[in-house]
Amino acid sequence: MKNVTVIGGGTGTFVVLSGLKKYDYSLSAVVTSMDSGGSTGRLRDQYGVLPPGDVRQCLVALSEASDLWRKLFLYRFEQGDFKGHNFGNIFLTALEKITAPNYQKVIDTASYILHTKGKVIPVTLDRVHLCAEYADGETLMSEDLIDSAFHKESLIKRAFLKPQAVSNPSAVEAIMTADYIILGPGDLYTSIIPNLLVDGICEALSKTKAKIIFNINLMTKRGQTAHFSATQHLLELEKYMKRTIDIAVVNNKTISKEIRNYYLKYGENEVKDDLDLFSEHRLNIFRADLVDRSAHATALSDVIIRSLQRHDPEKLAKVLSSVIQ
Amino acid sequence: MKNVTVIGGGTGTFVVLSGLKKYDYSLSAVVTSMDSGGSTGRLRDQYGVLPPGDVRQCLVALSEASDLWRKLFLYRFEQGDFKGHNFGNIFLTALEKITAPNYQKVIDTASYILHTKGKVIPVTLDRVHLCAEYADGETLMSEDLIDSAFHKESLIKRAFLKPQAVSNPSAVEAIMTADYIILGPGDLYTSIIPNLLVDGICEALSKTKAKIIFNINLMTKRGQTAHFSATQHLLELEKYMKRTIDIAVVNNKTISKEIRNYYLKYGENEVKDDLDLFSEHRLNIFRADLVDRSAHATALSDVIIRSLQRHDPEKLAKVLSSVIQ
Repeated sequence: MKNVTVIGGGTGTFVVLSGLKKYDYSLSAVVTSMDSGGSTGRLRDQYGVLPPGDVRQCLVALSEASDLWRKLFLYRFEQGDFKGHNFGNIFLTALEKITAPNYQKVIDTASYILHTKGKVIPVTLDRVHLCAEYADGETLMSEDLIDSAFHKESLIKRAFLKPQAVSNPSAVEAIMTADYIILGPGDLYTSIIPNLLVDGICEALSKTKAKIIFNINLMTKRGQTAHFSATQHLLELEKYMKRTIDIAVVNNKTISKEIRNYYLKYGENEVKDDLDLFSEHRLNIFRADLVDRSAHATALSDVIIRSLQRHDPEKLAKVLSSVIQ
Repeated sequence: MKNVTVIGGGTGTFVVLSGLKKYDYSLSAVVTSMDSGGSTGRLRDQYGVLPPGDVRQCLVALSEASDLWRKLFLYRFEQGDFKGHNFGNIFLTALEKITAPNYQKVIDTASYILHTKGKVIPVTLDRVHLCAEYADGETLMSEDLIDSAFHKESLIKRAFLKPQAVSNPSAVEAIMTADYIILGPGDLYTSIIPNLLVDGICEALSKTKAKIIFNINLMTKRGQTAHFSATQHLLELEKYMKRTIDIAVVNNKTISKEIRNYYLKYGENEVKDDLDLFSEHRLNIFRADLVDRSAHATALSDVIIRSLQRHDPEKLAKVLSSVIQ
């Protein structure tokens, strides 16, 4: 059975894991623990816990429990004392308080009741913040500020952690023993790169014999990757990874006009596929229809949300399964 | 295997169930759902859920899961957004929101992860309040007000529910199929009698072939049973139950002077055993040392808490097991 390690956080990683869990792989998810926004941000501030958001999402993505447990973990309170918090975050917070400092016990307990297929591994157990220094000289000192910096016209010159973080040994092991490592889709600076900033992760990535796969985002993101082409995404990721990527998976299906217009209002657009700039031996490219048609249809008719157009978990997993041999 | 049904709520019922679960009985706990104080009160107000506090306590009392799960369910957040709430209450609240209106699913799911031995049955699934009319003419309209009415000198003339509640069919079944029914210890008006006020419960109690056991409280409670002797406790309970009690279990060990002085400061004292007023054929009396010596020792050295002197779960269960034949 192939060892497949997914590195990331956020919705993109949820999509990859949801798709891949139906295949016969030994899965590990190495996830960011720098989130500082919303419910997760309040919990890390108020209780000093490791930000639970990304861990929770990965646990649910890999869950093979009944619908009830997945629903429970994702259930968000709409009012009252718990307003804005979802149950999964509260669960992980209480569990961490009881089992501290043994964070593995938190993961094990949650994995047990969620019947999680595979391992969820926080990239670091240190409490640190993601920072970004922009070309205009400004520096933002937490993940939520960077995530919502849609107003920024200038690009991020340098991302770093404060204080510096030491990698979780399990994360290094998952990288070293992997046959394939998958990054993306997801916000480049707030979901993927934070993992690479942790001491020991890039070293492991350069030493591992695993092939590195990068799923290119469908849409650009203002304040992070505005107007980035596929090649720019890839080169920027390689800059932080300090090694080359072996395989790129990129969408070749046109995004609907309705969706494109929606993104255009926010100054965002389809990621242009210019990967032919790479020679065949430098980068192995897989192109396919990866667009989730069901999600955006309901999303458009519902409330307006950002990150409207997503990868389809099944389409993406199918392409990945043809890559992973 | 004997069917034993415990009717109550609060700490007293927790003690009885904790002790009895080590014996080979088929246990059911019929519990109040009129609590309106603290975390539970806020949850019923904010989320419209059935008060989770007593259900949670009984589930934990009957739990045969590892320590971790019991600790988690009882874990109380000391600060932040969840201040004053314990995890078990949050769990039951989220679960009820997801599974509504199927409350049995809440119990089943919690019982599953807590490996609960026996059944926990809310006496009613209706959302109602406990009210008490006092001899001085005042009426208090919620459980938490009655529970903390230490200032009241006059006695409760009449307890009632508003609106009237219909019994949970499972509660009636647990009464009808019981070999023994156990009430007490516990606050007479806020933990035991609320169950008897629900439509259908007294009817079942008068029809059942089960023997009724009443564990007499160790101490009186101001605002409810100030200066009540054992006989007065028993007669008051029978008044609401509309039938006679078969067996009384009463402590015969002196409470330590230190503890007695502590209670005296609050105008509370040991319940005097005057049960010899009953003839042998009217009431079967079991007397034993039921005092928990370990608990009050730590409690006294710690923060001041009310309900300091408790029954010892093992001593009480041992006596009950000699009664239950």
